[in-house]
Amino acid sequence: MNKEIILFAMTKINHHFQKLSKEDLFQEIEKRVAAYKEKASTPHLLNLSVGDPAGPLCPSVIDALTAASKELGDKNTFRGYGPSNGYLFLREKIAQNEYKNISADEIFISDGASSDISNLQEIFSIDNRLAIPDPSYPAYVDVNVMAGRTRPLLKTGKYGGITYLPCTEENNFQPEIPNAQVDLIYLSSPCNPTGVALTKETLTEWVNYAKKNHAVILFDGTYESFITSTAPRSIYEIEGAKQVAIEVRSFSKSAGFTGLRCGYTVIPHELKVQDAGAIHSLHALWKRRLETKSNGVSYPVQKAAAALFTVEGKKEMKEMIATYQERAKTLLEGLKSLGYTVYGGVDSPYIWCKTPPKIHSWEFFNFLLENTHIISIPGVGFGMGGDGYIRLSAFAEPVIESLTRIKNLA
Amino acid sequence: MNKEIILFAMTKINHHFQKLSKEDLFQEIEKRVAAYKEKASTPHLLNLSVGDPAGPLCPSVIDALTAASKELGDKNTFRGYGPSNGYLFLREKIAQNEYKNISADEIFISDGASSDISNLQEIFSIDNRLAIPDPSYPAYVDVNVMAGRTRPLLKTGKYGGITYLPCTEENNFQPEIPNAQVDLIYLSSPCNPTGVALTKETLTEWVNYAKKNHAVILFDGTYESFITSTAPRSIYEIEGAKQVAIEVRSFSKSAGFTGLRCGYTVIPHELKVQDAGAIHSLHALWKRRLETKSNGVSYPVQKAAAALFTVEGKKEMKEMIATYQERAKTLLEGLKSLGYTVYGGVDSPYIWCKTPPKIHSWEFFNFLLENTHIISIPGVGFGMGGDGYIRLSAFAEPVIESLTRIKNLA
Repeated sequence: MNKEIILFAMTKINHHFQKLSKEDLFQEIEKRVAAYKEKASTPHLLNLSVGDPAGPLCPSVIDALTAASKELGDKNTFRGYGPSNGYLFLREKIAQNEYKNISADEIFISDGASSDISNLQEIFSIDNRLAIPDPSYPAYVDVNVMAGRTRPLLKTGKYGGITYLPCTEENNFQPEIPNAQVDLIYLSSPCNPTGVALTKETLTEWVNYAKKNHAVILFDGTYESFITSTAPRSIYEIEGAKQVAIEVRSFSKSAGFTGLRCGYTVIPHELKVQDAGAIHSLHALWKRRLETKSNGVSYPVQKAAAALFTVEGKKEMKEMIATYQERAKTLLEGLKSLGYTVYGGVDSPYIWCKTPPKIHSWEFFNFLLENTHIISIPGVGFGMGGDGYIRLSAFAEPVIESLTRIKNLA
Repeated sequence: MNKEIILFAMTKINHHFQKLSKEDLFQEIEKRVAAYKEKASTPHLLNLSVGDPAGPLCPSVIDALTAASKELGDKNTFRGYGPSNGYLFLREKIAQNEYKNISADEIFISDGASSDISNLQEIFSIDNRLAIPDPSYPAYVDVNVMAGRTRPLLKTGKYGGITYLPCTEENNFQPEIPNAQVDLIYLSSPCNPTGVALTKETLTEWVNYAKKNHAVILFDGTYESFITSTAPRSIYEIEGAKQVAIEVRSFSKSAGFTGLRCGYTVIPHELKVQDAGAIHSLHALWKRRLETKSNGVSYPVQKAAAALFTVEGKKEMKEMIATYQERAKTLLEGLKSLGYTVYGGVDSPYIWCKTPPKIHSWEFFNFLLENTHIISIPGVGFGMGGDGYIRLSAFAEPVIESLTRIKNLA
């Protein structure tokens, strides 16, 4: 390389990226698994790490997907650019089937919850004070680090400038109102990674806090379809939530759309922020962002999502979810009977399993990989509050064999 | 609404959004057309505004799309999460067919050029000095306004903090090296809206400028497939460009994927930036961004894109493009023969048509709408440098009828 270029370069990078830990969690797991595969004699690995449904997609979805694909091949039914907020046919189905008090106009279709939960922070000031559950889905923290909303990573493994909300055995994994004032609050229910749903009481406390303190809640409901308890499925079941909360959902987990890519975000019209002497609609800000940066979601994919709301589609999706719920229950009960301390599994496909005393989560990850050939996720990957746990997914692999391998450890 | 909430709200919005002009260009056009439809007795409108190919998609694409859709319905061929940078099968096809000196690993698949061209700025510091052609695709400016990289909109209709690169009749619509130092340079070729491709000389000057001044070029090649002149189709045809340029492309225009959503971005490994005493790979920064914020592009859509590189797919795409090239030529020559001063059309489906003397572009837009029922785009929507022009697209509507209507104006 030209030395002159190196010495006098003027283009500057986004320095906030340098605050990120070097590897993305899933990349780090992949790397460790690859290294293990090299030294071990190609064991049969059971991957209980990634939250990827085993599939296949429902017949109704496939029918709609192929029919819509064919439409694009006929000049009479071809469709080009769609609306940046998604087709009305899908937004209406969601409003009718998923909500009591949300209109189609308050729904924005996206290519998945990950994009929305990552990009929503763009409509807020850099100066907002963040509250993020610990542990939680890594992107909540990482996208705010990238945007410059945090200070550097401290020696404690936490970022300066974030109010972490501990989710522990002691508080039943329910994030509590902090002492510090916060403006922008990430909540997920059922929570990834703990698999525990937030109770009506917890959500009511947070909605009341947000109303009183003029904060905004970014609510991640990616796993709502797995709830079997009486926990709320939507934050809008809580009185007043429409004035303070944005809700993000996905078809990835409920309908196996991880490879197809579709989700949605709800921003009620009554959610307003008073700032610098004016009242701002977050709905309008998000709409403007989408119109500028996005050209919407693939038409056949939106047709496929709409098929989930037909009589047949609903039935098929329900059966699919029931299978995962059953597997999660088996895994949870099996681990319990083997003496493990486990959480989640009831309202979620994830089991949050405590490591043996004094064993850190990466150590237990390595131990399980080497002795059972099971790939888990070390809890610390979801934040320092996750150390002492691993996350096990009931999505993909045979749970009985997984349990047998763990049983044979002793 | 609760008055207390309004008075003491603490969550702050991203104030930079307030610097944007109130309406997105295309929203403003839609609004005016809707108003016109209300007062006029439902005239047969010809929409020469939006850059949306008429379709339908090629048979090869439809076959691949439906076959991949069916794969997702079978548990043996189901695919969940794909790579965040796109499937290797597609990246390899692009590297082999579109480039001489780019590897599959330097290509990132996306859901379209709009997302990439909007999001790439995230990996750069807020402090970089921008250079943006005037006129140009509105998102180049708007996404940087949103990110806080500009000062407010001035009375001149331009933003403080941007070095505008005038593209005029006088310079043959070739953006020239400015007097001011700039770090981050947006270039598009063939340019939207002028329809003019940048010459080898122009691109060589810019690459040399970037190398000497350690700047980075964001090159938008969305319309490269329409080039019929000897203009370069890729910036990497210019010596040394791999050290200074990122290239964005799309299947939207070349293959009618506007409703299907697929494009790609090339970031060569040798494109490095020295900043704060360290050397940074832009490839690594973008990769990290994608891994955090995205779960990749829909699998059937990527299979559909890959089908464009089969023998049959190439032939079909070539024929489709030839149709648009022919229509653009007819529209261009027709307008010329009617006495209009027109540019573009040779390397692009867009005609950049000068308005009559002293007529502003919104005035001419209104005049055409009311007297010919033709929807155009006022040039000023692409920046102040676009005033005195309208953009006409040869994509969708019958060009002969369009010409007849314009002829009958006199």
